Amino acid sequence: MQALQNREIRLVSRPAGWPEPANFELVEVPLREPADGEVLVRNTHMSLDPYMRGRMRDTKSYVPPFAIGEVLTGAAVGFVVASRDAAVAPGSWVLHDRGWREYALGPAKSFQPIDPSQAPPSAFLGVLGMPGLTAFVGLYDIGAFKPSDVVFVSSAAGAVGSLAGQLAKVKGATVIGSAGSAAKAAYLKEELGFDGAFNYKDGDISKRLNELAPNGIDLYFDNVISQYNEATHGPKNLAMIVGKRLTMRGFIIIDHFTRIGDFVAEVAPLLQSGRVKFPESFVDGLENAPQAFIDLLRGGKYLGKVVVRCAPEGTAP
Amino acid sequence: MQALQNREIRLVSRPAGWPEPANFELVEVPLREPADGEVLVRNTHMSLDPYMRGRMRDTKSYVPPFAIGEVLTGAAVGFVVASRDAAVAPGSWVLHDRGWREYALGPAKSFQPIDPSQAPPSAFLGVLGMPGLTAFVGLYDIGAFKPSDVVFVSSAAGAVGSLAGQLAKVKGATVIGSAGSAAKAAYLKEELGFDGAFNYKDGDISKRLNELAPNGIDLYFDNVISQYNEATHGPKNLAMIVGKRLTMRGFIIIDHFTRIGDFVAEVAPLLQSGRVKFPESFVDGLENAPQAFIDLLRGGKYLGKVVVRCAPEGTAP
Repeated sequence: MQALQNREIRLVSRPAGWPEPANFELVEVPLREPADGEVLVRNTHMSLDPYMRGRMRDTKSYVPPFAIGEVLTGAAVGFVVASRDAAVAPGSWVLHDRGWREYALGPAKSFQPIDPSQAPPSAFLGVLGMPGLTAFVGLYDIGAFKPSDVVFVSSAAGAVGSLAGQLAKVKGATVIGSAGSAAKAAYLKEELGFDGAFNYKDGDISKRLNELAPNGIDLYFDNVISQYNEATHGPKNLAMIVGKRLTMRGFIIIDHFTRIGDFVAEVAPLLQSGRVKFPESFVDGLENAPQAFIDLLRGGKYLGKVVVRCAPEGTAP
Repeated sequence: MQALQNREIRLVSRPAGWPEPANFELVEVPLREPADGEVLVRNTHMSLDPYMRGRMRDTKSYVPPFAIGEVLTGAAVGFVVASRDAAVAPGSWVLHDRGWREYALGPAKSFQPIDPSQAPPSAFLGVLGMPGLTAFVGLYDIGAFKPSDVVFVSSAAGAVGSLAGQLAKVKGATVIGSAGSAAKAAYLKEELGFDGAFNYKDGDISKRLNELAPNGIDLYFDNVISQYNEATHGPKNLAMIVGKRLTMRGFIIIDHFTRIGDFVAEVAPLLQSGRVKFPESFVDGLENAPQAFIDLLRGGKYLGKVVVRCAPEGTAP
């Protein structure tokens, strides 16, 4: 096998506030050959997720922080170009957590096989990946969803919200979504079949909700709360949690991986039949990942799951 | 039976902000004799509860607002002085919701018998009444309490908090309480056996909690949240509900009345054995109820359940 060069993106400084291009560095490094039991994967798609911003802070959390000077990591899919494990065939597709580089090299067990006949490889980063599982667990296990519910979803045109809203619609619920532009609100109604949708930047949110859900909301799937920061005051009407008998619950998707089987069994057929859509926004080239990540955090630019294509078209087997 | 005069307290105007004495009026009215099926009760003790402030507002809520010009109502206990219902014996003790007056007159079924051998009559307004049931349901049903928990209780020297903390202690939990004075904090530790307690007005709350519960808190029984008002911002760190996998739940005790049997079965023996204490603060004279209610809302003055004694000593049978 010919010696390969790998390109990867490293975190060179911790962002203060919004990340900036200078926090990242694109580096080219030689790639060694896989050792016994290892697999070499050509990444074709890499995931950008808002939770990664948290990992850029040097604070204790449920996932360790990214180290300065090290390559960033995150979900990616690709195909096996060389395998020194008999169970993994070259040409097969895998999902893993060694993104932010063009090639991933590591023990075979750190790569999870995926079946591209279920959905395009990028879908395993979004609607069939962690964001999709988050929608599924959030709606059913955390939100105790009932088909008779009136459901409100924030960031409803995003990777998690778009599936949460559509799953609720499939079950017969009334679904309202908010998003960061009029075009996204129109997309929710016209393409995803939401009963109501609005641009949260346009006018008074509680007035819009009263118009769209005059009898109130049973379930609020909030995709925004985790992005609150300490400079932001919480809601002024938190006392209503008593008078309205509300339950508010936070969760971390890594606690719920045992639900993956149920999740795929429900969602994969809905994708194949076209009943559930999965908006994706593609960014081409690993070198453009840092700016795309910054744009994702600032909101408004992308619809659905944001995926970096890190191999030229035609690279896949 | 000799014709009786009744004294009662009416709401004559709605408070703007803190209630003031001028919002209330003491009125003397003639008392008619009980009709067939009715019972006349001499109230001995009347309950003052923070939730009554909400009923002074003219807004839709889970209980209807008090009407202007009408007598205020609330929990009270007393003994039957005249009965025209064969099932209710004169001299027997009852609990009812027709407080803020010296005599209560109404259909027999609106008076619930109590057993003064279980506890003094006033206890049925506090530790064996709604506040006690609130502590019981909040701890076990809403809070999903486990004996291994580290529990934090706010307003821990109050009617609800003092029982919630003691029930958790009986089961072996580590219990920390906050209260509005150093004397109350000392009472929690020295008299109620709390593991830690502090005056929330004295220093930084999160620093005190970190000292008293260095490994964190599993269950926070918040007795203060329902008193937040719209002028108050919510917590700045609400986003931690995600990273710390928190559940926050509001409830209204009237939804949980079916738990009364379980509640009395657990708490009454703990009172009789002296294992659980029930701090009470007494105010003498119906005419002093409005000022006592104002003082209760402003906090700091009373320890435990606030009870108005509305019959002179020696009135009871």
